[in-house]
Amino acid sequence: MPKILLLNAGSSSVKWKLFEIDNEAVVAKGLVERMLTPEAKWEISYGKESAQETIPNLTYEQAAQLIITKLQELEITSLADIKAVGHRVVAGGHTFKQATLVDEEALDQIKQLSSHAPLHNPMEAKYIELMQAVMPKTPQYAVFDSRFFTDMPEVNSIYSLPYELTEKYGLRKYGEHGISHTYISKRAATLLGKDLADLKMITLHLGSGSSVAALKDGKAYDTSMGFTPLTGLTMGTRAGDLDPALVPFLMAELNLNAKQVLELFNSKSGLLGLSGLSADMRDIDKAIAAGNKRAELALEIFINRVVKYVGSFYAELGGLDVLVFAGGIGENNRALRQKIAQKLACLGIVIDANLNQKLTEGVISPADAKVTTLVVPTNEELAMVQEIKAVM
Amino acid sequence: MPKILLLNAGSSSVKWKLFEIDNEAVVAKGLVERMLTPEAKWEISYGKESAQETIPNLTYEQAAQLIITKLQELEITSLADIKAVGHRVVAGGHTFKQATLVDEEALDQIKQLSSHAPLHNPMEAKYIELMQAVMPKTPQYAVFDSRFFTDMPEVNSIYSLPYELTEKYGLRKYGEHGISHTYISKRAATLLGKDLADLKMITLHLGSGSSVAALKDGKAYDTSMGFTPLTGLTMGTRAGDLDPALVPFLMAELNLNAKQVLELFNSKSGLLGLSGLSADMRDIDKAIAAGNKRAELALEIFINRVVKYVGSFYAELGGLDVLVFAGGIGENNRALRQKIAQKLACLGIVIDANLNQKLTEGVISPADAKVTTLVVPTNEELAMVQEIKAVM
Repeated sequence: MPKILLLNAGSSSVKWKLFEIDNEAVVAKGLVERMLTPEAKWEISYGKESAQETIPNLTYEQAAQLIITKLQELEITSLADIKAVGHRVVAGGHTFKQATLVDEEALDQIKQLSSHAPLHNPMEAKYIELMQAVMPKTPQYAVFDSRFFTDMPEVNSIYSLPYELTEKYGLRKYGEHGISHTYISKRAATLLGKDLADLKMITLHLGSGSSVAALKDGKAYDTSMGFTPLTGLTMGTRAGDLDPALVPFLMAELNLNAKQVLELFNSKSGLLGLSGLSADMRDIDKAIAAGNKRAELALEIFINRVVKYVGSFYAELGGLDVLVFAGGIGENNRALRQKIAQKLACLGIVIDANLNQKLTEGVISPADAKVTTLVVPTNEELAMVQEIKAVM
Repeated sequence: MPKILLLNAGSSSVKWKLFEIDNEAVVAKGLVERMLTPEAKWEISYGKESAQETIPNLTYEQAAQLIITKLQELEITSLADIKAVGHRVVAGGHTFKQATLVDEEALDQIKQLSSHAPLHNPMEAKYIELMQAVMPKTPQYAVFDSRFFTDMPEVNSIYSLPYELTEKYGLRKYGEHGISHTYISKRAATLLGKDLADLKMITLHLGSGSSVAALKDGKAYDTSMGFTPLTGLTMGTRAGDLDPALVPFLMAELNLNAKQVLELFNSKSGLLGLSGLSADMRDIDKAIAAGNKRAELALEIFINRVVKYVGSFYAELGGLDVLVFAGGIGENNRALRQKIAQKLACLGIVIDANLNQKLTEGVISPADAKVTTLVVPTNEELAMVQEIKAVM
């Protein structure tokens, strides 16, 4: 059976899923995490089976090889049956407007676009190279997380900078989590039995990275993400919205260069920086339960920024039909959904406590609510498979 | 009659007003503009009289001397009757929480706070020194444009940065136009015959610099301005909200240092950068009438950002009672007020076309509107006089 292997690479982990091409069913999925640490481990699950193992200081190269080796050893697939490998790539800039077969030129362009996603593109390019080395005969595809946002109206996507610079250097909001926003917006419309093009929609992808998208006429209308995925909401380690004047200020005060200051904004800020504890909302919740005030502040700020972006996009869209919660936090943190909805009651957003508790997918607002609110478990890999199939 | 002279210093101009202390009446007002250019000129008006003169290449020092000389020559006041000179200072940081008599230490602190307002504080400190030289026996007071925002809730005022840095370096939103937001919010409550503390209010100060403030319980609750007056709305020459990652990107592409990139964001962006024509909304309007597409884009972006901030603060406040338009653009550009209100109809904001056309101060929404909208000509100098009197 022909299959597609999908990779979602992070700085210390790589998640993967193996799909059958024809029926888009997941055959197996797995994870290699905490690479280069003593706790490095891999895990895999397929059908009702699963396997895992700790391999201290496992490298990126070993991880790439291991995925392919295990798939064959466990007789999940032959190498020949894997017809394509798909890679999530955050920044496609102006260059990539659809899923793309990666040749040498495309790989160079993905690396060059690292200025738009310094935390993501370099690692994603690395995994493309690693998988090329492991399976040199299999085509590698890049699926771009920014694609969804390429046609946003100029008024919402460019900055108020000298227009010549905007044009010359492509200075605009590129968005992130576009694969997720694409999937959850379509899925929400399907669940409602409505045409996406008829709905004013705001989609909340809340996870370790978080973003808000506004949709109008079935297309992306705005995003909280900026030129890079630094801006917008408070994230796990990313600060979200900031005054750029903080860059020269902190360069002088901390004796850093500009890139180091940005590294601080991207990797040591957000929930982690505010709480001093963790980038993970589950840890923040535990600390709040134990009476930690800074964890409470971190949660309050997280909620405040979501509330402000929803209000901002509500006004920009001229009203709202549908609000969607998704992502690791959005799908699982019921208390947080409730708190956000309470603050947004002024916009007609209400959640039914019972539905909110019970459902993992579907409408969680009462039938008479002005805005229909849903929770939709995102499925970026399925959306990626569909994008790759369209260009294979 | 004892009097207070108030100065509002810009980079190439200085505006002033002379008030009687007791009844807060304006005795005279004037302007020196286009300093250091061949078109440099001064003007003064008092009662029904006025005078003006072009003096090519007039310097800052000459301007300071000239104001005092003319006030005496024209027999408007004696030097002895000027009991205090008040200076608008944009950034007071954490240091200054009220109007302050300027001694050597205070002047040093105002200069040090230039990192919070690089376009403003240095020039304002210069005028304090110039006026000290011209009238060494008269006390000089600084009135801080950031004061109104010093007690904003932490959740709305700090950034999602490492909390230790936030504390150590005072990293937060300091706000600007606080003198104006103070005046227009109080005045709006007075005009409505209501207690400011009972009103959820959003005040729009739209001028060559523009900012939005949210008020709750009679106090500042949020501001579009950031650590410096760069962020928030699209302004005359300032870009408003941006991704800080643009700083290292443009440093590399344009071969600039970080401060030069910030200078570009502050002085060559906004309406000027978008339109390529002018930082003045009146010029933008004229260019649109002549069919200029980039001027149209600049106006659309200006409106879009106002709409988004109002939506954002509406959600954060949990609804809205009063919206106030003020500032050079907010007070005079009726068509722009109408366009903004049309976009905000989804929040219950409606303007009566007739009232909007007719009134220079007062309620411009229909009696049954969910949100009461007013236009209030700002009077920063009067607010400054009141602040100085409180500490004299």
